[in-house]
Amino acid sequence: MRKLAVSASFLSEKHCTVIGETAQRCGFTPDFFLDTPLSPAQAADYEVIYGEPSRALLRGATSLRWFCSCFAGVEAITDESLFHRPDVLLTNSAGAYGLTIAEHITMVTLMLLRKMPQCMEDMRQHHWNRIPSMGSIYGSTITVLGTGDIGTQFARRAKAMGAAAVYGVRRRQQPCDSAFDRIYSTEQLSQILPRTEILVMALPATAETAGILNRERIALLPKNALVINVGRGTAIDQEALMEALNEDRLAGAALDVMVPEPLPEDHPLWHTKNLLLTPHISGQTSLPETVDRNVDMFCRDLENYASGRPLTHLVDRRRGY
Amino acid sequence: MRKLAVSASFLSEKHCTVIGETAQRCGFTPDFFLDTPLSPAQAADYEVIYGEPSRALLRGATSLRWFCSCFAGVEAITDESLFHRPDVLLTNSAGAYGLTIAEHITMVTLMLLRKMPQCMEDMRQHHWNRIPSMGSIYGSTITVLGTGDIGTQFARRAKAMGAAAVYGVRRRQQPCDSAFDRIYSTEQLSQILPRTEILVMALPATAETAGILNRERIALLPKNALVINVGRGTAIDQEALMEALNEDRLAGAALDVMVPEPLPEDHPLWHTKNLLLTPHISGQTSLPETVDRNVDMFCRDLENYASGRPLTHLVDRRRGY
Repeated sequence: MRKLAVSASFLSEKHCTVIGETAQRCGFTPDFFLDTPLSPAQAADYEVIYGEPSRALLRGATSLRWFCSCFAGVEAITDESLFHRPDVLLTNSAGAYGLTIAEHITMVTLMLLRKMPQCMEDMRQHHWNRIPSMGSIYGSTITVLGTGDIGTQFARRAKAMGAAAVYGVRRRQQPCDSAFDRIYSTEQLSQILPRTEILVMALPATAETAGILNRERIALLPKNALVINVGRGTAIDQEALMEALNEDRLAGAALDVMVPEPLPEDHPLWHTKNLLLTPHISGQTSLPETVDRNVDMFCRDLENYASGRPLTHLVDRRRGY
Repeated sequence: MRKLAVSASFLSEKHCTVIGETAQRCGFTPDFFLDTPLSPAQAADYEVIYGEPSRALLRGATSLRWFCSCFAGVEAITDESLFHRPDVLLTNSAGAYGLTIAEHITMVTLMLLRKMPQCMEDMRQHHWNRIPSMGSIYGSTITVLGTGDIGTQFARRAKAMGAAAVYGVRRRQQPCDSAFDRIYSTEQLSQILPRTEILVMALPATAETAGILNRERIALLPKNALVINVGRGTAIDQEALMEALNEDRLAGAALDVMVPEPLPEDHPLWHTKNLLLTPHISGQTSLPETVDRNVDMFCRDLENYASGRPLTHLVDRRRGY
């Protein structure tokens, strides 16, 4: 029997059973590392590993042919030197997190539009104040940077809630989910920012996305605009964003990702005006549906792998996602 | 020319122009009371008044034939003694608030499911913690008490976000918006509570709705259930709700309405576990769209009134809404 290691703390007994049955059907013996993660020394035994991305683990995995990351973002493990052979396959779990992150984006967008951070602070102090002005997803113009599973799932919800327009921005202009009214290329981003009221960023960390929302582009957004980032903190010029918020050149922002994480105690982001911070929780695996999809995606690709078919969630290591 | 008084602080110049043009077309001269509300003494001059519900104003309105409340809830002004003749027409603005309140319900539901009150308290203290368990609107079973504009607008959003089932509960079982999977009568409420994960209450204050969520019915809800109330505080046995929350017999609640309002400084609701309080802001007029709809509804009924057609938003004073 061929050897498979499953190293993930979030799996329930039900998920282990599903993986075990699929593995057996595919000719694999699975070993589960749930409470204590697989060590780099142990990793040497396995042909296939499904788990959290770890550079040390990959360096130790000298029999590896396929690593499936249970996270969506794999930017930490794309350099070739981590793999003992260039043809080791790398897949990610982008697609498992769209649902939970889309609900997070919907929530923080409404919280910013409806001034909930201020309202909750008032309530904490038992002050009974009304909210002087609110906004709405209904009738708003939304631009979504990144049209993958996350961006698409959010776009569908925004359209259902009556957004006037939902634009998608991706590397190349090409057909996309019908939830998007129109797709623009990254080169066209600056041209739609001036009419964007809600900018949602759901991009992987790659060379191309680093600093994509730079100082110049932040300045193109209207004063009433909101910025929501659930991708990677590197996509935003944080200094420029903090300045724009503190000077009321933007109405608000919600960051679930930032640089660095965790945020140090003395970081100025903690005290930035109209900024809603969450500690990288938009996509975590605490939603049962997310784990179900994660396991389901791995099992389907395990069947593909065993049958010699191409893997669905293959990462292009040079591109970074 | 017949006399119309418009007494509402939230109207912009644009709205006053629209009302002025409609009034003229209908043979009315409108007087606007924007900064200082119409007084009971002044009210005596007017055949039609459009404004905030006020018992004193109605008592003074001795020429009144039609009062249009710019609020949806009119329970404070339904007793006959306030009206100088029994045939004075009363309309409300139910229908103007569905959009903004549906966005509020969506927001607080997601906030409870995703443990945002705890997360924001952690962030306030700069504690970088993950969220141990979350829920989702996707796949959930939702019961909406009250299938008017608010309940329907929320039901549509919940279905679009993938709720497994959205049940509507109303006085009588009858056809409803297709966003509801099924409509139950109030008598059947107790039978669906045990499988309700999210209970949304959007009811007017009437004799029938007072205490509708009583101690016995709260006990029928599962331990993981959430209760959201945007109607009137009188609909819930608050003591029983506080006990259930504090004893973890319910997972959480969000109250935008409560008894009394504003909440006194020493009220135990302030310290109830897993309770998200907002100060009756879900439907306020700070959303431009709400004011647009409010004015539009009044103007349409003004055309109806002037032409002798029935008014669309007529209130049955004996029924209370």
